Amino acid sequence: MRSALYSSLNILWKSNRSAVYHVPTRQAGSGLAEYPGTPLASHGRPGFEDTHVMIFIGFGFLMTFLKKYSYSALGFNWLLAALVIQWALLCQSFYHMKNNTIYVTKKSLLEADIMSATVLITFGALLGVASGLQLLFIAIVETAVACLNMWLVADVFKASDVGGSIAIHTFGAYFGIGVSMALKSKNKDTTPTTNGNTTPSVDLNAPSYISDVTAMIGSIFLWIYWPSFNSGLTNTDAEYQRAVVNTYLSLAAATVTTFVLSSALNEHKGKFDMVHIQNSTLAGGVAVGSVCNMQIGAGGAVAIGIGAGILSVLGYRYLTPKLTKIGILDTCGVNNLHGMPGIYSGVLSVLFAGLATSDAYGAELGTVFSGIGQNGRTIGQQALNQFLALVVTLVLSLNGRTIGQQALNQFLALVVTLVLSLVSGFLTGKKQFVSTSEVPKRL
Amino acid sequence: MRSALYSSLNILWKSNRSAVYHVPTRQAGSGLAEYPGTPLASHGRPGFEDTHVMIFIGFGFLMTFLKKYSYSALGFNWLLAALVIQWALLCQSFYHMKNNTIYVTKKSLLEADIMSATVLITFGALLGVASGLQLLFIAIVETAVACLNMWLVADVFKASDVGGSIAIHTFGAYFGIGVSMALKSKNKDTTPTTNGNTTPSVDLNAPSYISDVTAMIGSIFLWIYWPSFNSGLTNTDAEYQRAVVNTYLSLAAATVTTFVLSSALNEHKGKFDMVHIQNSTLAGGVAVGSVCNMQIGAGGAVAIGIGAGILSVLGYRYLTPKLTKIGILDTCGVNNLHGMPGIYSGVLSVLFAGLATSDAYGAELGTVFSGIGQNGRTIGQQALNQFLALVVTLVLSLNGRTIGQQALNQFLALVVTLVLSLVSGFLTGKKQFVSTSEVPKRL
Amino acid sequence: MRSALYSSLNILWKSNRSAVYHVPTRQAGSGLAEYPGTPLASHGRPGFEDTHVMIFIGFGFLMTFLKKYSYSALGFNWLLAALVIQWALLCQSFYHMKNNTIYVTKKSLLEADIMSATVLITFGALLGVASGLQLLFIAIVETAVACLNMWLVADVFKASDVGGSIAIHTFGAYFGIGVSMALKSKNKDTTPTTNGNTTPSVDLNAPSYISDVTAMIGSIFLWIYWPSFNSGLTNTDAEYQRAVVNTYLSLAAATVTTFVLSSALNEHKGKFDMVHIQNSTLAGGVAVGSVCNMQIGAGGAVAIGIGAGILSVLGYRYLTPKLTKIGILDTCGVNNLHGMPGIYSGVLSVLFAGLATSDAYGAELGTVFSGIGQNGRTIGQQALNQFLALVVTLVLSLNGRTIGQQALNQFLALVVTLVLSLVSGFLTGKKQFVSTSEVPKRL
Repeated sequence: MRSALYSSLNILWKSNRSAVYHVPTRQAGSGLAEYPGTPLASHGRPGFEDTHVMIFIGFGFLMTFLKKYSYSALGFNWLLAALVIQWALLCQSFYHMKNNTIYVTKKSLLEADIMSATVLITFGALLGVASGLQLLFIAIVETAVACLNMWLVADVFKASDVGGSIAIHTFGAYFGIGVSMALKSKNKDTTPTTNGNTTPSVDLNAPSYISDVTAMIGSIFLWIYWPSFNSGLTNTDAEYQRAVVNTYLSLAAATVTTFVLSSALNEHKGKFDMVHIQNSTLAGGVAVGSVCNMQIGAGGAVAIGIGAGILSVLGYRYLTPKLTKIGILDTCGVNNLHGMPGIYSGVLSVLFAGLATSDAYGAELGTVFSGIGQNGRTIGQQALNQFLALVVTLVLSLNGRTIGQQALNQFLALVVTLVLSLVSGFLTGKKQFVSTSEVPKRL
Repeated sequence: MRSALYSSLNILWKSNRSAVYHVPTRQAGSGLAEYPGTPLASHGRPGFEDTHVMIFIGFGFLMTFLKKYSYSALGFNWLLAALVIQWALLCQSFYHMKNNTIYVTKKSLLEADIMSATVLITFGALLGVASGLQLLFIAIVETAVACLNMWLVADVFKASDVGGSIAIHTFGAYFGIGVSMALKSKNKDTTPTTNGNTTPSVDLNAPSYISDVTAMIGSIFLWIYWPSFNSGLTNTDAEYQRAVVNTYLSLAAATVTTFVLSSALNEHKGKFDMVHIQNSTLAGGVAVGSVCNMQIGAGGAVAIGIGAGILSVLGYRYLTPKLTKIGILDTCGVNNLHGMPGIYSGVLSVLFAGLATSDAYGAELGTVFSGIGQNGRTIGQQALNQFLALVVTLVLSLNGRTIGQQALNQFLALVVTLVLSLVSGFLTGKKQFVSTSEVPKRL
Repeated sequence: MRSALYSSLNILWKSNRSAVYHVPTRQAGSGLAEYPGTPLASHGRPGFEDTHVMIFIGFGFLMTFLKKYSYSALGFNWLLAALVIQWALLCQSFYHMKNNTIYVTKKSLLEADIMSATVLITFGALLGVASGLQLLFIAIVETAVACLNMWLVADVFKASDVGGSIAIHTFGAYFGIGVSMALKSKNKDTTPTTNGNTTPSVDLNAPSYISDVTAMIGSIFLWIYWPSFNSGLTNTDAEYQRAVVNTYLSLAAATVTTFVLSSALNEHKGKFDMVHIQNSTLAGGVAVGSVCNMQIGAGGAVAIGIGAGILSVLGYRYLTPKLTKIGILDTCGVNNLHGMPGIYSGVLSVLFAGLATSDAYGAELGTVFSGIGQNGRTIGQQALNQFLALVVTLVLSLNGRTIGQQALNQFLALVVTLVLSLVSGFLTGKKQFVSTSEVPKRL
């Protein structure tokens, strides 16, 4: 009876027991196993908790800037992330099972949180455009594809991408742009306020004073914990500290640059644009992501941050209006915050991988660049693989377009059938949910 | 002179010196003593800091949902918690003194923070109903009774309740319900908005768009740090990690369930109810609390979370309106968030204690279930004691009713006399405080 | 080529490579070097992350209480802090270079964050009074002077000031008061709302209900993480734990005191003043700052907190209106939160240094009071040096007056020339920034 109960409880995860059940004899203080027998490198690091704040508070509140869309932003952010972290635990583990068993550890939770950022970035591009069910569909598919991409980047190409600028930020942004391109024709009539302050829009969708203040809660928490995000999956303590220091410096430099440039480019002399303040300040964290554990030097980190601030502010100021004009909506301007800075970071990773010397890195060469040493890859090959990782990510994220079209065209046929069969049994007699094909956009 | 000064400073706490004064010769890096001579199991865990955020930001902002009551919610939450953490340090230590000395350590602070949650849950039931002085009176008495209950649960019954679902959540909720029952007759005329969206109320007490956004700050921070709350007092690293993983999964599952069910039950097709979003999402953390360090399996954690979400949303939707109709006010619906999910968790702890085998737990059997091993208790006895702990908590928390009546009837006679004698000497010449018997409900 | 690139990247920081580049051979888990070869005492402590939240969320949101000044408060807070943390890394390291190299470590980041608090406290005094460019000028100069002062306090006098109450809080507050005195004559016509609720002001600058709620976000986060702030730079684990416990108790006591006194002194019977709640509650953290790692006893910590609450509330109630009347503006009342409680803490540090015995501290005597033991200083000499540290801080912070006058008089001549030459090359063709001598006060 007892074992039968366990079996039924565990069947959901196709695991007999999660990892921690395999270490029942461990004593207090004897170290904590990430995987049985391995010491926990991240013990004492705040990576998981801080990233958790970024995902649920950071992304959630950053998207409250539209004054009548705050509920939806917070609600869908929470729902999507809570769904994706469970789904990503499975999808990511698919590539790392041992003995057909999935080990769920604190490190898995961090990886799932990081993966959910991909979907939330895509959500940022589609805020106010896609419906709730469309978002859920996109989230499920995108997570699966993004996990495949992550496997290609990290395990096949063995590219160095510790802060996820390639596999998370670039992927999420261009997946969103792809979906937006697919939605393009359908949305001629519904043009929401884009963050690029171009479309003169209906008043309801505009930011308000207080909604721009609540958006700052999200923005500042993202900024504060970004060093923990970028350093969360580093292997050694030296790498960890380097990632923290470089991310901190890049963010600080991007912030000062953003304020100066925003003020300089503003039509109202000397004023700052809240869109730039809320977003471009963070571009320094994206830009340094793929290289933050490398030996880029304190000056290098600052220079990267300055470049990211310039790239992002110019993007919001000049590029987003152009994209909006040709019908590609990007509500939060994720192309300027995650997309272009992500590519920038990928290119930097090719550069710094090419510049790496065993003299400079010593024994760290194999931990920072996991491809080197393990399989005798040379530095030049590593640089090539960094490049391939970036390209494959861009190509795979273009799937967003296909998925977006599917979300539109095959939507009713495919999803509603599934939803109907499952939910109708579950919610007998409750008609309002299943009788409509789409959840209204507003909560 | 010097020692005389020390004596007078220390007399407040009836301790010569707090614990840390007993380890003056410790070197940096040699480990940190919780109690002299014991290594600090929680070193590197964020339990204290994260719980601190939950108590002061989480509970405080969650209760700002009433648009004209945000000041009071934040203010009284802060005042009550700041008072209770000091009082709980004494009350809890009363049962764990060594050589008649109270050792105040970082772990004590975490325990005091957790205890203050009890009072804040009770406050949630009484929000807008009880006056400031009534709340202070309730806080002082409740803390003392709750510490007694905690001692019974943890030290006498040696029940496993690592996340406090029995001793904190269940106790706090039903203490609040008890006080509310006592206040019932007095409050015929003042019916505030209950969160169960039933009473058509005066506009002032209703939620507003922005107050529901600020409430989300509290709700999401509670959600984010709940794994740290539940795992804060675990003994071993394996237990710690299991508590984090299980709480995370249960919360994520409860969140998805809450969104689906809230949408399905809403009169406005497909819309979400902000009350459910702000509260029922958290029920997964309560429900898994007593069993999160046990071997419930990843699938078990998800199943528990789904059950908690269903239980809580149904409670808000159907039960709270009925309770309000018969005069039992529960402003924040703590019965649905803390009460019923707490009982649910207690029942689960009986189940999983009964299912425990030394084969599955190995040497951990004695640390997860502190009663087993130490005194040769069998698994069946442990399950019985888990049950007793739950029952005693429910019985003791009913005292809230008595205290509530006392708060009403003996209020002036008892408290004002005390307050007058102490405060009048302290605040000579300041008449406004002592000349009124009650602080107005609004700040 | 490769080395040339490195050189150009690193020249900004006058370092070949930051510290972490000197430990390339370290293995995972072998401990983390703050400085090469030294074990990281703070591993597992949340000092850096929590202080980071205080600086950017805490100070930022605390200053949003003026309803039409929230953007400026959040924006300038972010800009100033992001600038100062980079500048402070250089200024502080100037006194601690090894082999003419600056090592940037996680500990440096914490020290830079703490230093930026000085400038933000000064900003609090000048909120709504000084323009953006004036604030930038002040920030640059103040950071340099404050780092000099820090060097005098910590390295020359070897005063014990672990929470920075002398070198950070007192310095920042009186620097701000100094600038405010210099600005006095210029501001006859523009009297903003001071926090001392005296000046009946124009409606735009008054607090609003929601702005007082967002200010609570800042206030409570400052309160929550203050134990991490005060304990961040402690040397040993025992010291660390003592600093956390004492700060927690002092804050809790100050909070209860603030609520009681605010209610007692309020014209509206029994109501609380949001200014006191947002600020005086924090005075307990300042007051215990210089002595929190000493053996002050739990009762001592509570007593210090009670004193701080009284001092701060009385300051807001009686002193700030008087200062405003004679023209010294202090928008956030930093004199009551940081200034007087900082002096109070400095005086306490003299007292407790004088009371120290090697019997009570044992081997810790030399780590808590860094002057003792190292150079054979006696306890009496240590008390004298604590006193000198406080006096020198007060004298140096008076420079604020000079700098304020310079900010007014030499402003155009000095700064605009510099800004013009640098920025005009950088932003060719962008005229709006450089053609105005001052950024408007509002964003």
